Parts: sequence; structure tokens; C-alpha cells
Amino acid sequence: MDSVLRQSKAVCPFMMKATAAGLRAMTTAARPSVSPCGGTISKLQVLARRCPVMGKAMAVQSARGGPGFPSAAAGITTLSGGGHAKASKAKLHTSRAQDAQPVEGSLFREKVQLPPQLPIKQQTAATPAHGAPTVAALVQHGSKFDYEGFYEHELEKKHKDRSYRYFNNINRLAKEFPRAHMANREDKVTVWCANDYLGMGRNPQVLKAMHETLDEYGAGAGGTRNISGHNRHAVELEASIAKLHAQDSALVFSSCYVANDATLATLGSKMPDCVILSDSLNHASMIQGIRHSGAKKVIFKHNDVEDLEAKLAALPLHVPKIIAFESVYSMCGSIGPIEEICNLAEKYGALTFLDEVHAVGMYGPHGAGVAEHLDFEAHVAGRPRGTIMDRIDIITGTLGKAYGCVGGYIAGSHRLIDTVRSLAPGFIFTTSLPPAVMAGARAAIEYQSNYDGDRRLQQLHTRAVKESLEARDIPVIPNPSHIIPILVGNAELAKHASDKLLQDHQIYVQSINYPTVPVGQERLRVTPTPGHTKEYRDQLVSALDSIWNELGIKRTSQWAAEGGFIGVGEPGAKAAAAPIWTDEQLDIADAARALLAASKSAAERGNLTERLLEREMKGVSRGVSATA
Amino acid sequence: MDSVLRQSKAVCPFMMKATAAGLRAMTTAARPSVSPCGGTISKLQVLARRCPVMGKAMAVQSARGGPGFPSAAAGITTLSGGGHAKASKAKLHTSRAQDAQPVEGSLFREKVQLPPQLPIKQQTAATPAHGAPTVAALVQHGSKFDYEGFYEHELEKKHKDRSYRYFNNINRLAKEFPRAHMANREDKVTVWCANDYLGMGRNPQVLKAMHETLDEYGAGAGGTRNISGHNRHAVELEASIAKLHAQDSALVFSSCYVANDATLATLGSKMPDCVILSDSLNHASMIQGIRHSGAKKVIFKHNDVEDLEAKLAALPLHVPKIIAFESVYSMCGSIGPIEEICNLAEKYGALTFLDEVHAVGMYGPHGAGVAEHLDFEAHVAGRPRGTIMDRIDIITGTLGKAYGCVGGYIAGSHRLIDTVRSLAPGFIFTTSLPPAVMAGARAAIEYQSNYDGDRRLQQLHTRAVKESLEARDIPVIPNPSHIIPILVGNAELAKHASDKLLQDHQIYVQSINYPTVPVGQERLRVTPTPGHTKEYRDQLVSALDSIWNELGIKRTSQWAAEGGFIGVGEPGAKAAAAPIWTDEQLDIADAARALLAASKSAAERGNLTERLLEREMKGVSRGVSATA
Repeated sequence: MDSVLRQSKAVCPFMMKATAAGLRAMTTAARPSVSPCGGTISKLQVLARRCPVMGKAMAVQSARGGPGFPSAAAGITTLSGGGHAKASKAKLHTSRAQDAQPVEGSLFREKVQLPPQLPIKQQTAATPAHGAPTVAALVQHGSKFDYEGFYEHELEKKHKDRSYRYFNNINRLAKEFPRAHMANREDKVTVWCANDYLGMGRNPQVLKAMHETLDEYGAGAGGTRNISGHNRHAVELEASIAKLHAQDSALVFSSCYVANDATLATLGSKMPDCVILSDSLNHASMIQGIRHSGAKKVIFKHNDVEDLEAKLAALPLHVPKIIAFESVYSMCGSIGPIEEICNLAEKYGALTFLDEVHAVGMYGPHGAGVAEHLDFEAHVAGRPRGTIMDRIDIITGTLGKAYGCVGGYIAGSHRLIDTVRSLAPGFIFTTSLPPAVMAGARAAIEYQSNYDGDRRLQQLHTRAVKESLEARDIPVIPNPSHIIPILVGNAELAKHASDKLLQDHQIYVQSINYPTVPVGQERLRVTPTPGHTKEYRDQLVSALDSIWNELGIKRTSQWAAEGGFIGVGEPGAKAAAAPIWTDEQLDIADAARALLAASKSAAERGNLTERLLEREMKGVSRGVSATA
Repeated sequence: MDSVLRQSKAVCPFMMKATAAGLRAMTTAARPSVSPCGGTISKLQVLARRCPVMGKAMAVQSARGGPGFPSAAAGITTLSGGGHAKASKAKLHTSRAQDAQPVEGSLFREKVQLPPQLPIKQQTAATPAHGAPTVAALVQHGSKFDYEGFYEHELEKKHKDRSYRYFNNINRLAKEFPRAHMANREDKVTVWCANDYLGMGRNPQVLKAMHETLDEYGAGAGGTRNISGHNRHAVELEASIAKLHAQDSALVFSSCYVANDATLATLGSKMPDCVILSDSLNHASMIQGIRHSGAKKVIFKHNDVEDLEAKLAALPLHVPKIIAFESVYSMCGSIGPIEEICNLAEKYGALTFLDEVHAVGMYGPHGAGVAEHLDFEAHVAGRPRGTIMDRIDIITGTLGKAYGCVGGYIAGSHRLIDTVRSLAPGFIFTTSLPPAVMAGARAAIEYQSNYDGDRRLQQLHTRAVKESLEARDIPVIPNPSHIIPILVGNAELAKHASDKLLQDHQIYVQSINYPTVPVGQERLRVTPTPGHTKEYRDQLVSALDSIWNELGIKRTSQWAAEGGFIGVGEPGAKAAAAPIWTDEQLDIADAARALLAASKSAAERGNLTERLLEREMKGVSRGVSATA
């Protein structure tokens, strides 16, 4: 940031006179409209649009799909069809009706981004609090650079904008799932925010496969895939993944972060003049991969197929294009419009790159993800050809969340996989995953492919928690998935709520603050599992209720009174976010109808899932299969 | 490459007339002088230097330390002190006296690199063999891009330049180390090229720690470090690593590829106007990290402190700088001049970034690497302060090679580690390593820290193999480390030799071809372990000997008759590559002197290590401790 600032100050009459405090003040939003994950326009931006230099730069950014800047560039036509932003809307797949901006992306733009606004008392001086030096002070001509001072400066910035992370020591206990102990073995807590969504990390078949493989093949792979690190575990795991997604072939990486980064960077850099169209809420790994590719990047509004189509239509047909998007967006729980994107990709000659990281194991009759779920019956019948999943060119997934282990993968055509295998440094030059990890992951995939009870129970527990929170007026950002984002709306309050949950209630839910979500949208992200039985659910809801009282955190009704915010308290938002797992798919449709017909009050109707689960526990109906 | 070519063809009178075959012919080396890992100058380069456009570009690249181009840019002064390449020499730490060029780096410059020369029969036409389309043919205005054709084209290029990789299915057996089975369980082979250098992958204490952790804490970590993936295993492992390297703090990543990439990218992008000085043979992970940082990159000649100093001196003192280098370079076995680089770093105000990936567990009294080894006695005495290791700012290492598991790390000051922890997306946005992996890795570090028998025996086995190969006139590229690079010098021959070793002799040694090493320097890379007892060593050496005969591969004496090549057959090269583990450190000095004094022939003297090991086996002297 400093070099940009210094340059600007030298040439710009406005910047020469501006003070740091003044600039900060001007970052206040001039328009109140915001999306669940960002998108304001500040006074500084309004001013900057009048500048002959910045105005042009911003127009270009806007035409390219940059966030938050209404286009002012009628002359820029290549990417936006005239530069006029269409009054496009996010589709039903998402809970949000407003424009969004990249979330994780903000991390990478820090250099040109002004810091989030701070309370007035911290804005009075240009010198930072706590005596940390400015970056400028670290650079003194004739002296060596002050590295320790630089680190201190960077850390101070994190403290000041409340984005400094304190890690909680959480030791998840396989035999007491979903319980964990803290640093002290006696301090036990219930984990409500892990991504081991199905408890596969303690699944006996997974552990058995890992123990046996450890004994027979040892701890590590011993080399890269090319030099002694290729083995039957890799072959078998990749075959299971390819079969799961009904694709030709698959390739395993150290993590899905690496899979996304390496695949996008490789394809984007190798295909001549490639353009990558990226959903504005894409994960950091995809943002990095696109950045590392050096390809042209066009951001489309979150889940907005109209915006995507406008941007695709503005590109020449012959140019190679990749549409990169997710099925489940992890911080909001929104779900991508996969079929519509496939249609557009075919129409405009683009590759589809679908990240199913938060969906594999969780959706579809075999756990292959949302793409499989959308053709539920066809996949139950074993007829994948022509389905939406079949139309996706590149599916990426993880072995570290619902599958309970670690690692990531891509699946696609033989040639695609062979190309990435042959060209991606992040695949080539790294040690293979341990045989035991690959064996465990494969056991998890096979288990979930043959048994859907875990993911159905997980969905019911999600519904039950969402209903209970709603009954208590605790604000959940509406969405059709298994993610429960509970809106707090303030960084300190969110951290305080998380700390109180842990200390007073022995419940672990990490607070999610900037830069993972925008300032003002801080939340608690709750992830139920099949192991979160009624006792745990009741504890969570009543703990949240009492903390909401103690800390005076806004209730849903209060958000509603203010007109709603990112779906919370907005009329229609919940209806638009009907769960992707239908009652029929969960095999509860008949029981639900019967219970609803017999319900005497709104409270009873609102508590439907909990009552269905009670029936199930009593063995009244077959309903949901028992969990493992 | 094609867009560069197309542009060039449109504006350059020479390129307009040139044919593809003609251009390829001109890539023949005009100067025979080459280094172990590259550095020729082609006819095309000679010609290009006369061009007013390319000549200038090449001069800039040369001044910046680009490979292979003697500087012709007297006017470019900022980075090379006048642009005149000094007649500098690699230090004793390396086996090589000639200039080197980046190896893995060539992969990333493919776009502007002409392919390695092919046999004449494949050069006759501009249309590729096997009917693969050209990239130009894939781009047709008005039609969609042909993605499958693009993959086919990329794969065809790999086949044509012999860089297509065929993976061997190698299942290393914990109970029969260093044996493995192939796809068929009955087909057993001896593994001679794994990076599980000490056999820690089957160490009982490592396996015990992993089994116990699996049972207690399950398969996966369940989240990122910030969200439920931080636990006692991470805390304890990082504490062990920090202690090992006598640094304040440490941070664990999915792999050391990710550690290097994320750390260099983060520091290089955040420090204002940072310059990264990179050894020309640095690993792909560092090259990527530097690229991703967007920082200025200055390549210095491999292990050449004079060249490094010239480049440091040309930079302003106040500019932040990182010197990125390795202790053991894995494909050549050369060792970096760590102390000299520390001296320069202090003089010019630079950070030192030392990759000890191939050295941790292997060198030093506690296995902390070469930096520890250089102050052997001080570290034995537990006095790390002021040592070379203490002076390094950032040490990176792996848990996947000598420590037998998977994962990577950095170690350094509290603030440095906290800064990378807080800012690096590749650390933040990825699932933690499984608890069992972290527990196993920690057990391996602690074990090797308290027991030096494995690494001493490994060194003796290395010496014994090198001596036996020398006795058979089989060409080993001289170096002071545990790596045994056996020169073949031809891609097809190297692959053929590797295949024959596997099929005819049940010995697995992967051939190392372009782009991992330059064309013409193809090799077999052999890595002995403590488990490679005399029977295995004899099998290896006699198998190599018979294959050298069958395939007519050049012997050391033949290379010598031609004046030597990359250290092989060069007078003095071996003497300059004395093993870093001295006889005294191996505790064999007295026994070696006695045996040498009693030796009756040169053969006996050449076979010294094998005879020492025999004595040891017979219990004649205490010599080397027994292996675990």
C-alpha cells in the first residue's frame, strides 16, 4: 500500500493535501446497500470517480466485473457488453438478493485497500497505537531494513482491525464425538464448528483401513508421485474418486487448496489468452490459482447467471474460458446454480470448474455432491450419462471435511487429468500423501457411497437447529445447505460470544471475522453432525439464547425492524432458501405431513424436525436410518 | 509459446522467414561448456544478441542473473555492478566449478523456451508427430476452443521431448524395508531412490505414536488451524521443531512445497519493494513462491558467493532483501555455502531463507540439518547461540523425507512466524495435517534428535556405494552429501536403464530426465538408507555394471577422455567434494587409518568403507553404532 500511496502523493494534488485521518473518514459508505458478504461504495470512491486517472482505472475494473463500482465506462466494451452493469439478480439458489463482492479476495487486495473503518478514538492520529512503527519508518535510506519492525507493524495492523487470530486448542476425541478436550485434558467441550461434517474421522472402517495400512506400508509415502511415491493406495483412491463423480479419471493433491491453486494456475497459464470467470465469493484457493495463472480474470456477481452470461457474451467465442465456482459456499451456505452455469458454458464454449469441497459426502445418493444431488433419481438408478455432474468438466473436492481425513483432488477427462498431472508444479514437486491417509480416505468415500444415513441425519439435525434458533429469534442467515451462519454483525461481539460459549457453556464455535467475512457481517458458523443429538442441540440453543441476552446481540426481529440485513429478517428470504435435501429425499415426507396435520400450534409446526427426530428415536416410523 | 511466436513472426523480418525446423536446429549449443545442471548458449542465442530488440532484453536478463547469457549490457548497472559477469567460481561446498542455471525453473519458462533438440527424423515437418494438432489449429475464430485438443497437444509435447512421466507402482513394505511390491503383490523390488532416507516411515516409535493418536483423536483434524484444527499435536510438533532448530517458533504446513511457496510469496509481497535473491538451482517450490510474491527476483549463480555479493552490493542498503537457498541440492547433492551467505546477509542487511528439506534428520548431532552440522561441537554441547544455525532467519524443512511422514514447516523468530501465520493464505485457508501425522512426525524428530546411529550408518552406506561405483568406472557426479547422482547423459538411455534395473534386477531407481535436469544430464539418482545392507549394495552395483555394458552407457574414464563433464572425470572434482560428515564425526577415523596403513593395493584402499562396515558387522571395533 505504501508504495502506491507514496506514488500517488507525489503526483496527485488531492493526495498531496489529504491527511491519513481524512482519508479514513472518507471510506465511510456513501450508500447503505450491502450484500451478505460485502459491497459498499465509499465517499472516497465517489470522489475518485471524478479523477481523470482513477476514474478511468475504476471504470476498467468495473467493466471487468470488479466489485462495488457502478460502471462509468461506456467506452469499455470488450468484457461487459457496453460497460453498463445490468440490473441482474442473484438466483434462488442463493439467499441473497444483493450484489456481492469477493470475501477471501479482500485479503489479496490489501495493498490497494484502505483498512476497515476504526472507532473514532483510534483515528485521531496518523501514528498507530501501541507505539508500532509505520512502514515508512522502517525504510531509512542508508540503513538496513528493520525486519522485526516490519513484522511488528503487520501484526499490529491485524490487532487493530480485529483480524488477529487466536487459535483455540481443540482435541477432538474419536470415542466421544463430537466432544473434545482443550489444552488441559479435563476441560471438555462440545465441538459445533468442525468440518468433519459426518464424523468420518472416527468411523471404524476408516480407522481400520488406516491402522492396517500403517502396519503394512509404514508412515509416509517416501517420495513424489514420480519418484517412489506412487502406489496402490493412490491408484485405488483415484479410481474411487473418478467412479464417485462418474468422470474418466482423478488426481489427488496434498489438499484441495493445492488442487484448486495448481489446476487453475496450470490451465490458465497454458491455454492461449485464457480468461477465467470467477464467482465473487470463490474460496481463497481459487482466487490464488487464478492470480498465479496470470490469466485474465473476470469476476461475476455471486450466483448471478445473468451477470455471468453478459460477461461470457462479451468474450470472443474462440477464446478459452474457465468458469470457476462452488456448489456450497462455506461461510454463507448458499448453493451455486450448477445447471444454469453448465448451459452457459456449453453455449459460450467455456470449461466448468466446480469446487464441491463442502458438498462431497454430503449431497447426492452416493455423496458425490450437489451436482449429483440435482439428478438424484438418475444417479440412484446408476445412469450418470447426460446428468449435470456428467456435464461438469472439472470437479474438485476434499478428503479433509466430510470424508474425515486430509487431501484434495480433481476429477475430469483422461486427457485433462493427464495434462494437470504432467504440468502442475504443485502436484509434481511434492511428497505424496501417506498410504494410510489415502486408504482411510478411500474407505470413507466407499462407505458414504454405499450408505446415506449419516448425511440424511446430518440434514435433519441442521433443520432442527435452524428451527430452534428461529423459534428463539436468533438470527440465522437463510440458505438451503447444511451450514448455519448465525449473524452477530460486530467483530468484538462475535469473539466475545465465541469466548463465552467456550468458557461458560463448554461449547466451541469459532467466531468468523474480517477478512473471512466483511466488517459488519461477523458471525458464528455452526455445523451440526449426525453426532449432535438432542441434548447437545438443546445446550447449544439455550447457551446462544442466554449469550444473546447477556451481550445484547441483535435478534432476528430487530434486524427485521431495520428492514433486514443479508437475508436475516427479510421477508421471503427464508422461503427462497428451501433445503436442497427435500422431505422426499430424506424419506420424511409422509411423517412430516401427518405431524403437521396433527399440530395444534405454530410452535409445534415450527418444531417439526425435532418431533420427527423424536419419533425416529422411539422407533415410531422407519423414517431416517440409524447412524453408524 | 505460441502467442510469443505469433507476435514475433508478425514484426520480425528474421522470424517471418524462419522455419520451425530451422529454429530447432539453431538451438544446438554453440559452446560446449555446461554445468551439472545446465547452461549452454545456443546458435539462436548468439544470433538473438545481434537483434536490437532481443539483444537488449537478453542483456537485461543477463544483468539480473538470468541463466546462460553472458552479459552484453554495460549500461545496465543497478543489479550487476556494471553488467559484467565476474569470472566467479563456485565454492568448495559444491562439486561444480562451472556456471549453473535454474533447473526446475525451466518448467516455468516453457512459454518462451524452445523445446530441447529432437532427433532429426522428428524435425522434418512443422506438423507434430502422431497427428496431434498445433495450438494454433485449436484457436479458430468463430468456433469454440478445442479443450481436448489442447490437452492432447500438451501431452504430445511431453511425449516428444521425452519428459512425459510414467509412474511406477511402488508399495514400500514397512516390515521388509527397503523392499516394496509392485502392482502385483508377488513382484518384489528393492527401492533405491526413496527419500525416506533413514527408514523412519517404518520406525516402531513413529508407528506407535500414530496408532495411538488415530485411536484417541481419529483420522483427520476436522478444520483449518483457526476453526477447530488447532490441537496439542500441532502445538507439540511446532515446539519440537523450534527446539530442533534453536529458533523461537515454528509453523507447520501441508507440505514444504506449500511452506516455501506461502512464506516467500507472503514476505516478498508484503515487504515494500522487496528483492529476493535466489540460487539458480533452487527447488520449484521456492521458484513458485518468488513468482507468486511479485517481488523482484535476482538469480545468483549456484553456490557462488562472489556473484551473490556483487548482486547484493548493487542493491540499496535500505531495500528489504531475502536470500533464498538450500543446504543440500537434491538432484546434484551439492551443499550451499551457508556461513558465507550469513556473512553477506549481515553485511548487506538481508534475510536468510534456508531450505533444509534434504538435510533435516540427516546432518548435525541432533539431525537439524547442515546448518547445525557446521557447528557440530557447539550443538553437541548444547550451545546454539551465535552458531550458523542461530544466524539463519528462516529455516524450512520437511516431515516427509528423513522424518518419514508428510508435511513441511518454517522456523524463525516469534514475530516472523506470527506474521506468516497471520497473513499466508496457503496456511490459513487449508485443513490442518491429521493429528496422527503430526504425532508421528514429532516422534521421528525426537527420536533422531536423541540418536545419531541411523544417519551415520546412512553416510557409511553412501560412501560404500560411491566407492564401489568408482571402482567399476561407473560415473557418479561428485558431491559432499548423501545423494548419489549417476550420470547417464541421455533421456532414453536413462529411462531404459531404469526400466532394465526394475525388470531384470528387481531394483527400483527412477530415471531423472528433463525438465528436472537439463537435456544431456539425465541421471539415476540413488539414495542409500541404513537398511541398504551389503547384499543390496552388491546387487545394485553389479546390476548397474551389467546394464552399463548392455546399453553401452559412458563410463567415468570415457567422460574423462573427453575432458570431463559436470564433475565426472574432471581432475580435482572428487577431492573438492569431501563428505560433509568427517571420519571423526562418523567415529571411524582411527579404524580407517589402521585399515589404510595395512592396505596392500589400491583396490583395498578404494574399498575402505566396505571393509570398515565389515569390521563393524564382525564386532571388531565399536566404530559405528548399530542401527535401530
